[in-house]
Amino acid sequence: MPDAYFLLEEHYHKLARLEHALTFLQWDHMVMMPPGGSEPRSKAIAELTSLHHEFLTSAKTGDLLQEAAGQATTPSRNRSLQEMEQEYQRAICLSPELVKAKSLAGSKCEHDWRNQRKNNDWPGFLKNFKEVVGLAQEEAQARRDFTPGRFSTPYEAMLDLYSTGDSNSFIADVFTKLKHTLPGIVQQVVDKQKGDPIPDLQGHYPIDQQQLLNLELMKCLEFDFDQGRLDVSSHPFSTGCRGDQRITTRFRETDFFDALLATAHETGHAGYESGLPLEWDGLPAGSARNLCIHESQSLLFEKQIFLSRPFISFFSSRIHTFFPTTAPIDGSQLWAAATRVQPSYIRVEADEVTYPLHVILRYEIESKLINNFIQADDIPEIWDGKMQEYFGLSTAGNYRDGCLQDMHWTDGSFGYFPSYTIGALNGAQLFAAIRRAHPDWQEKLADGDVNFIRNWLRKTIWAKGSTMDSQDIIRSATGESTNADYFLQHIQERYIDELY
Amino acid sequence: MPDAYFLLEEHYHKLARLEHALTFLQWDHMVMMPPGGSEPRSKAIAELTSLHHEFLTSAKTGDLLQEAAGQATTPSRNRSLQEMEQEYQRAICLSPELVKAKSLAGSKCEHDWRNQRKNNDWPGFLKNFKEVVGLAQEEAQARRDFTPGRFSTPYEAMLDLYSTGDSNSFIADVFTKLKHTLPGIVQQVVDKQKGDPIPDLQGHYPIDQQQLLNLELMKCLEFDFDQGRLDVSSHPFSTGCRGDQRITTRFRETDFFDALLATAHETGHAGYESGLPLEWDGLPAGSARNLCIHESQSLLFEKQIFLSRPFISFFSSRIHTFFPTTAPIDGSQLWAAATRVQPSYIRVEADEVTYPLHVILRYEIESKLINNFIQADDIPEIWDGKMQEYFGLSTAGNYRDGCLQDMHWTDGSFGYFPSYTIGALNGAQLFAAIRRAHPDWQEKLADGDVNFIRNWLRKTIWAKGSTMDSQDIIRSATGESTNADYFLQHIQERYIDELY
Repeated sequence: MPDAYFLLEEHYHKLARLEHALTFLQWDHMVMMPPGGSEPRSKAIAELTSLHHEFLTSAKTGDLLQEAAGQATTPSRNRSLQEMEQEYQRAICLSPELVKAKSLAGSKCEHDWRNQRKNNDWPGFLKNFKEVVGLAQEEAQARRDFTPGRFSTPYEAMLDLYSTGDSNSFIADVFTKLKHTLPGIVQQVVDKQKGDPIPDLQGHYPIDQQQLLNLELMKCLEFDFDQGRLDVSSHPFSTGCRGDQRITTRFRETDFFDALLATAHETGHAGYESGLPLEWDGLPAGSARNLCIHESQSLLFEKQIFLSRPFISFFSSRIHTFFPTTAPIDGSQLWAAATRVQPSYIRVEADEVTYPLHVILRYEIESKLINNFIQADDIPEIWDGKMQEYFGLSTAGNYRDGCLQDMHWTDGSFGYFPSYTIGALNGAQLFAAIRRAHPDWQEKLADGDVNFIRNWLRKTIWAKGSTMDSQDIIRSATGESTNADYFLQHIQERYIDELY
Repeated sequence: MPDAYFLLEEHYHKLARLEHALTFLQWDHMVMMPPGGSEPRSKAIAELTSLHHEFLTSAKTGDLLQEAAGQATTPSRNRSLQEMEQEYQRAICLSPELVKAKSLAGSKCEHDWRNQRKNNDWPGFLKNFKEVVGLAQEEAQARRDFTPGRFSTPYEAMLDLYSTGDSNSFIADVFTKLKHTLPGIVQQVVDKQKGDPIPDLQGHYPIDQQQLLNLELMKCLEFDFDQGRLDVSSHPFSTGCRGDQRITTRFRETDFFDALLATAHETGHAGYESGLPLEWDGLPAGSARNLCIHESQSLLFEKQIFLSRPFISFFSSRIHTFFPTTAPIDGSQLWAAATRVQPSYIRVEADEVTYPLHVILRYEIESKLINNFIQADDIPEIWDGKMQEYFGLSTAGNYRDGCLQDMHWTDGSFGYFPSYTIGALNGAQLFAAIRRAHPDWQEKLADGDVNFIRNWLRKTIWAKGSTMDSQDIIRSATGESTNADYFLQHIQERYIDELY
């Protein structure tokens, strides 16, 4: 008779195979599918999602988890069991009625939002959004109540879905420091850059050549094309499974740089996924730890490697070979263009210096909203106040470029935003550790060598999967818990001292 | 309390959603997936296949079918029930052990065959193949025994999987006529064409331009790109679902014509699938009737429309615009090149006049093999004898170009081959009916108008799905059961009289 843990592994492998199917059906949906496929695809995805939920929340899972918990086993199996238990609890703590209502309200709100944003229609949006907020509050409450004492507020239970293991008080502390430091730094950088000429990179860059250029960048970043591919979608993303990483980017004929940034970013996500521990493949312990670490990998590839002076000098010489009819690109000019800082309305277009302030603004609003200290109606006024405070910009009456700009809240993904900034801090902190371990890092990047970085990350981050808590991973890699110091040092070095 | 039939519809819709997932995971596997994805993909496909089998063969299906059979209902529901019953019986009549053994032996035989064919290694192949044949005989026997009195031989039970509803004796009669007529006609055509110059179409045709040319052909054949797409795979195929037809072709730089033939062929398959009856969508009654009708649609598009003199004249003028640096293509030259007839070893490269003889040869061998009148060891000698009889060619010692050339037998798909030729007869017979209904068919095709054909097929064939027996569909569309007359007339008109 096989033991309960062994049976649990079989059970979770089955779940992983359903997740595999869902992953690639969704990739196809975003990248390949013609419009006519929409209805049958949605039905197939809903069917598999519901089968997955059924298996995960079955009495069998609960019974096996209980049985396995009572059996003596190894520490690594205990860890694996703990991650299985967490996945199970996250699924079983919500009633099927709530899950369904949430999915319906979220789909409607997101669908209508696309036009409401265009039309600056806050009152129209608010009608759907109140329903989404109400259900999200219910969800947050149910998640908190399911493990009494674990989360101090309902919002923290939502936050934990994305920033798993990084507590709300920890994140709040880090954000407080950034919030008080960054506006002054932004002002300093803006003043410093005021006199600099803005290099003009606009031109005509044929898409098929851009495609080749992005493949070249992936090659330079050591992406393995036997284990993945690059495609095009309206918003860049990364998905796939071990052995088959699918990343996407998007092209504009007048600009080649944005696509490269997206490609470098998604190559980082793909690197993490490709290096997850083989011995826990298909099990919760073998999954990516949390979004704060996932985003640290993408930002490390995008901001720390690709945007670094030595790498961009190395790579800029290649760019010209793909666009022989346009003038050669000068590495320092490209770097100057890519490191311009400017307070602005739109988060996704923000530079890395102002970006955290966009995130903190959202965090401050969504945490109060989910914990019921403010109402959905209050958001535009609070948004405008914070925009004035952090950026000196007003969004009064301008919902389109204010609280209607993001998709995250429309389907109830409250708690997602903080991972972008904790990811940026992790990325800078990890890169600082890599620099300490490889004092010749600049020479290496100038030669286009990134393997020393991949190897370091593979060992310290990727291979850990979810076999440790997030801060244990960060501490074992860098010697410290996540903090703002290395990010602020990076901003100082790049934007004030103009070193790298 | 919903009635049993209603519950069955829900149950089969769930099965259809799993089939949807399998369809697109397999498409991705063939068209998009990098090599590294192979292992997890195989596991996910196996998991979904086994879930599908589990649902289909569950006690629930059997109970509901029995219950529904006892309830008064409408004729169309009865028909739908009958098709559900057939799908259920086909799945439940084999033991899980046999299904698994067959799948393993078939995979191994097919995998090893790829090298064995290259190496002309019949003895090596025979070792695996005997296992495949043994299991196929077991399968055929089990299928026949499950519905006593329905199939006269084990082979007929296999044949029915592909040619559903077209009996073995019916097919044998038609094949006997062809077998006695065609060799003489082949000789007549070969003699006739002996003096003709062979137009040389070899040249340099860039793949990206060929891609555009094939999209142009699909447009001319009224393929709806909002409901499907064209991609590349090593062997052309067609798959997908309502609203999302995925077809593939393959390109060679030195020749543009083969890809066009494949594209026209697969566009015909896609047309059939796109026109299946909406009211039975996702149910067995709404599926394609059988492969004899499926293949008739692809061959009608490829041989009757695309290869017709008026359409090829219309289309050949467009070809040049895609290859402006090569000499213009003359329509009659293209037609002359495309209608050359030559007895040859390889089925997939055969012209439409000799093709049926390749199929009849295989049918005669596989039926005796599955009914245990000959042994696998006997095949090369019988193959050689029949090649000499039908083509005047010997394959003695040349297994590579003889009995090792096809993939179908390697995984035990005995009974598949006849549908190619019954499909060709159906295609010619349907096109003759279309010509009678549209006496101006040549003018229309010369103008690039194919909608009158699509509309006729949609009404008489596509919209019927599996709501009627195959020969009832053919009779209601053409006034006669499938017979060889129209195919032979077509061969006479195209290859002897050189009319169309």
